[in-house]
Amino acid sequence: MTHTNPDEISRIFNRAPFIADLGIRLDSIAPGECHTSLVLAERHLQQDGYVHAGVQATIADHTAGAAAASLAATGHHVLTAGFSINLLRAAKGSHLTCVARVLKAGSSLTVVESEVFCGLPGEARMVSKATVTLAVVGPRDEA
Amino acid sequence: MTHTNPDEISRIFNRAPFIADLGIRLDSIAPGECHTSLVLAERHLQQDGYVHAGVQATIADHTAGAAAASLAATGHHVLTAGFSINLLRAAKGSHLTCVARVLKAGSSLTVVESEVFCGLPGEARMVSKATVTLAVVGPRDEA
Amino acid sequence: MTHTNPDEISRIFNRAPFIADLGIRLDSIAPGECHTSLVLAERHLQQDGYVHAGVQATIADHTAGAAAASLAATGHHVLTAGFSINLLRAAKGSHLTCVARVLKAGSSLTVVESEVFCGLPGEARMVSKATVTLAVVGPRDEA
Amino acid sequence: MTHTNPDEISRIFNRAPFIADLGIRLDSIAPGECHTSLVLAERHLQQDGYVHAGVQATIADHTAGAAAASLAATGHHVLTAGFSINLLRAAKGSHLTCVARVLKAGSSLTVVESEVFCGLPGEARMVSKATVTLAVVGPRDEA
Repeated sequence: MTHTNPDEISRIFNRAPFIADLGIRLDSIAPGECHTSLVLAERHLQQDGYVHAGVQATIADHTAGAAAASLAATGHHVLTAGFSINLLRAAKGSHLTCVARVLKAGSSLTVVESEVFCGLPGEARMVSKATVTLAVVGPRDEA
Repeated sequence: MTHTNPDEISRIFNRAPFIADLGIRLDSIAPGECHTSLVLAERHLQQDGYVHAGVQATIADHTAGAAAASLAATGHHVLTAGFSINLLRAAKGSHLTCVARVLKAGSSLTVVESEVFCGLPGEARMVSKATVTLAVVGPRDEA
Repeated sequence: MTHTNPDEISRIFNRAPFIADLGIRLDSIAPGECHTSLVLAERHLQQDGYVHAGVQATIADHTAGAAAASLAATGHHVLTAGFSINLLRAAKGSHLTCVARVLKAGSSLTVVESEVFCGLPGEARMVSKATVTLAVVGPRDEA
Repeated sequence: MTHTNPDEISRIFNRAPFIADLGIRLDSIAPGECHTSLVLAERHLQQDGYVHAGVQATIADHTAGAAAASLAATGHHVLTAGFSINLLRAAKGSHLTCVARVLKAGSSLTVVESEVFCGLPGEARMVSKATVTLAVVGPRDEA
């Protein structure tokens, strides 16, 4: 099986307006693993000055999508079916980073774990962890 | 027990920079139930033109927070501990709305269900549903 | 589309040894909705005398499977891909009942909500609620 | 802080009638980590001959409880608030084992990850993974 190549995944990743608007960047992509980051600004926060759960969920979901896509066959793409996320501690700092790793790549469903870290550069802590379930959609399914 | 009053909840709701930045508005709040909405723009979308899962998760989480806060005792507030969300169908339309209802209000944990709808005004369909678990935090817990 | 008929679902339901062993019974099945029950015994409990979360998860999952199967095309069956469950209050009583309703029936994924009640007959309370995601598997997928 | 000791955890673990009835055994317990196992019999299966999702959820939840308890202060205990589980592949074999590790131990909430393996001894594969959220309950909360 030929996997979707990294350049194609990077192109799809950056084509999402919401991701570009928030400022989330793709740092690296390898088969089954993706790293992303976000320089935090005040607009990413909730009422107490911490990173909003919605921002954490967004980076966790989108990074998981790229990791899942990296193991999908050429011509197939992935769509989030759902996810669960646990917020482990208050997220405060200048940077948010995310590492997504495929737990199980299937022909119709792929499960990915995303860990989100927050802090100052070099001293970040895990602030949330998500498990994302994605549907693998082939060319024939779009007819 | 005296509950946090609606004006105070509205004030907290709107004080979150990420929510103001996205354009999410509080439409109504009553004990145990909250309604919100968002006029969609291109920046809320993912690569295929649908509303990004992160936007849906954000409105589901924040609306759940307001619903949970409406049943919290005066002086207490709520913090999301985690949530799960199922994306039921592609979200396309001009408006996103959310209804959050408390399933169980507890002294330390509250569980809320958020339903997210998308479409043109008057013909929206449910596009996702989330179950949000929130920690109820009292004045003494912040010492 | 012809749906799997109730007698066939009932037959599949009762063929699961773990369900028969626990004593879970199918009370009614209609398109998209299934009701089940369990007469509680000491062996269903955890260390404090409440119904074990595993028993609640089992009835929630299996009842969801029957509800999902009721909307699957003839010849197709369903398999749980995953679920989340919230335990809302301590489960104590003589009977456990479950109602599962399909939230979204899809061609490849179906999402079902299961509510679990516990108490004495006629005065049960909701003790847990689960959201179950099931893969719809067709004859061609089993080759 | 003094943690609950292993002997006490083992005693609580084995006092749950449902766990004893299924045959789940505590193999080892250390601060933040617990290992358990189950010799499979026909009664643990679903209709296709695989281990029922309810059995997998039960071992994932109960093992997580022991792992969380191992980091709770003396006199405190833990109660499952909810969990999500992903079933990664069909579970077939003679043995089920589970490893639970604490992801975050908090004063009021603890999050644990449980991995469930199935197969013949020495060649088991991960069949499911759960994330369990537990409430930490102290003596004062039981008044």
